[in-house]
Amino acid sequence: MTAIHPVILCGGSGTRLWPVSRKAVPKPFLPLVSDETLFEQAVRRVAGDDRFAAPLVVAGAAHADLITAQLSNTPGARLVIEPAARNTAPAIALAAALLPADAVMLVCPSDHHIADAAAFRAAALAAAELARQDYLVAFGIAPDRPETGYGYLQRGEPLAGGFTVAQFVEKPDLARAQQYLASGDYSWNGGIFAFRAGHLLAELAAHRPDMARLVAEAVAGGRQDGARFHPAPAPFAAIDGDSIDYAVMENTARAAMVPARMGWSDIGNWAALSDALSDGADAAGNVAKGGVVDLDRCRGVLAITDGPRISAVGLEDVCIIVSGGEVLVTTRDGAQAVGKLPGAVNQ
Amino acid sequence: MTAIHPVILCGGSGTRLWPVSRKAVPKPFLPLVSDETLFEQAVRRVAGDDRFAAPLVVAGAAHADLITAQLSNTPGARLVIEPAARNTAPAIALAAALLPADAVMLVCPSDHHIADAAAFRAAALAAAELARQDYLVAFGIAPDRPETGYGYLQRGEPLAGGFTVAQFVEKPDLARAQQYLASGDYSWNGGIFAFRAGHLLAELAAHRPDMARLVAEAVAGGRQDGARFHPAPAPFAAIDGDSIDYAVMENTARAAMVPARMGWSDIGNWAALSDALSDGADAAGNVAKGGVVDLDRCRGVLAITDGPRISAVGLEDVCIIVSGGEVLVTTRDGAQAVGKLPGAVNQ
Repeated sequence: MTAIHPVILCGGSGTRLWPVSRKAVPKPFLPLVSDETLFEQAVRRVAGDDRFAAPLVVAGAAHADLITAQLSNTPGARLVIEPAARNTAPAIALAAALLPADAVMLVCPSDHHIADAAAFRAAALAAAELARQDYLVAFGIAPDRPETGYGYLQRGEPLAGGFTVAQFVEKPDLARAQQYLASGDYSWNGGIFAFRAGHLLAELAAHRPDMARLVAEAVAGGRQDGARFHPAPAPFAAIDGDSIDYAVMENTARAAMVPARMGWSDIGNWAALSDALSDGADAAGNVAKGGVVDLDRCRGVLAITDGPRISAVGLEDVCIIVSGGEVLVTTRDGAQAVGKLPGAVNQ
Repeated sequence: MTAIHPVILCGGSGTRLWPVSRKAVPKPFLPLVSDETLFEQAVRRVAGDDRFAAPLVVAGAAHADLITAQLSNTPGARLVIEPAARNTAPAIALAAALLPADAVMLVCPSDHHIADAAAFRAAALAAAELARQDYLVAFGIAPDRPETGYGYLQRGEPLAGGFTVAQFVEKPDLARAQQYLASGDYSWNGGIFAFRAGHLLAELAAHRPDMARLVAEAVAGGRQDGARFHPAPAPFAAIDGDSIDYAVMENTARAAMVPARMGWSDIGNWAALSDALSDGADAAGNVAKGGVVDLDRCRGVLAITDGPRISAVGLEDVCIIVSGGEVLVTTRDGAQAVGKLPGAVNQ
């Protein structure tokens, strides 16, 4: 059995976690949930286990040095520098083109938190087994709320270790999300995938021939520099970007999913981070991080500071974030709108 | 008709307005409601009107230089430096002892806001007229809510321009405060008084003979230094401090009150400041002051910063105060507890 090749994508900007997440050091490279960054956690989740090869990381040039620093304990890791941001399909295709055609690749976003790494690895092994049978496999995250911010997978026929995908569903409205949750047949599409590299490229060539051709040109004209690979900028920049879901997964006849119940969170906003940190909450559900925080009659408050003391009285379900000279105060319900604040937009 | 002598007391610490109000520059000396400080407003309220003499200011040594600076446009102002803080009765008695026995003194706290200065002056003239008839006169602030944080005056028999005081009432519980508000017979005791200086000293000698004797000794042994008067420290420090209400007003047979409806606020906490600033509020009742403030779907928010931008989403009836490296976030209901936060206590 050959090892699974983790492909770690570093595209997320994390503007909803402003002011901590910034363009220069965005969400994947911040120690949000533990002392490790989300990227380091993504790497370590598949490290020290010979069922997994060293990771291939795909990222923009702006973060290459951050990544190299955070990979310092990861022998054999390689870095592919995207000449431009073109969404997930070209990024994944770049990685696929640099791996043996037979290799099973495990595509992992670097800006998610997974509490149960063992459950993740078990799902990865099941997904790899299906990928070897030429399925394109998505992780189906067990939903625990009627979330309207994610795409969903409807499970189809049973397979060994998983299911076919009956359909991919766009972000639903609340009523449909509630139906999905109640039915038990739907999972969140967490953006974690397994495929054989050659199979993914073949499917891409079938459904997005221009993209497949330009990726092949970018790789053929690329330049290896130590552990870094630089695809040729011109063909890559010419790609009409798209997500792997739109470009391939929704078009293939071989989509499968493996159910995954692994304490997953995309840490999509401050409320989600508060939930991910709930093990460290006090009796009133408050979480404090990073400095002196004095809370008086508060409940469900997340307070994070990089220096100034935070003092709060009487708040419920509020996030207070003090970072780099910015002060953000948002309700949990408002957290989704943080990325549109002037401070986040004009950083 | 001789002029009325304003006596401006600067004793308040304003810990509930932490972190803006601090020991070094407490509440009276801050431009909370306008570009002028509350102290400057208190001085200007009786300035440029020959019915009022130049003010006599009573304060501790720690704030003497602040006061001198903020009095720079007030010719003839004098400053009495209290050797120790002994509550309002000794402070007022010091001032009384330095004025002619016949002079009518108008005692004004320096940490209150009065929106309608003309109404204040009209009440002061009415109070002075009663003081000349040897009444000890309190301003009775028209209440607009069942406040439990203030003392109340119950009005008695009508006098020219005022009423006798039937009784002074301690801070009531909510049920009693609601009765007082409904009855129309009660006013808030705002700590603003008028008396003849000699009469006040005579009443003090009757009800607190030790205090009266020690104040007289402190004045007799005191030292004039330009516009500053320094009472002798030893006798003043030996005083058993008390409020003018307890020491005199509740004991005299000559208590009177003048009704005053003048947009009064003691700016007792951040919620009270928010109310005092409501003329500058946006359509959703938000007030921003001091720097860049971006509010998204907020209502009734007070946001004040001395530098860092404040960004907020979805909050209702919350005060966000950023000052001197401290970040305070409190509900309006919690604002009364700010003075007990570790930051305010240990400043």
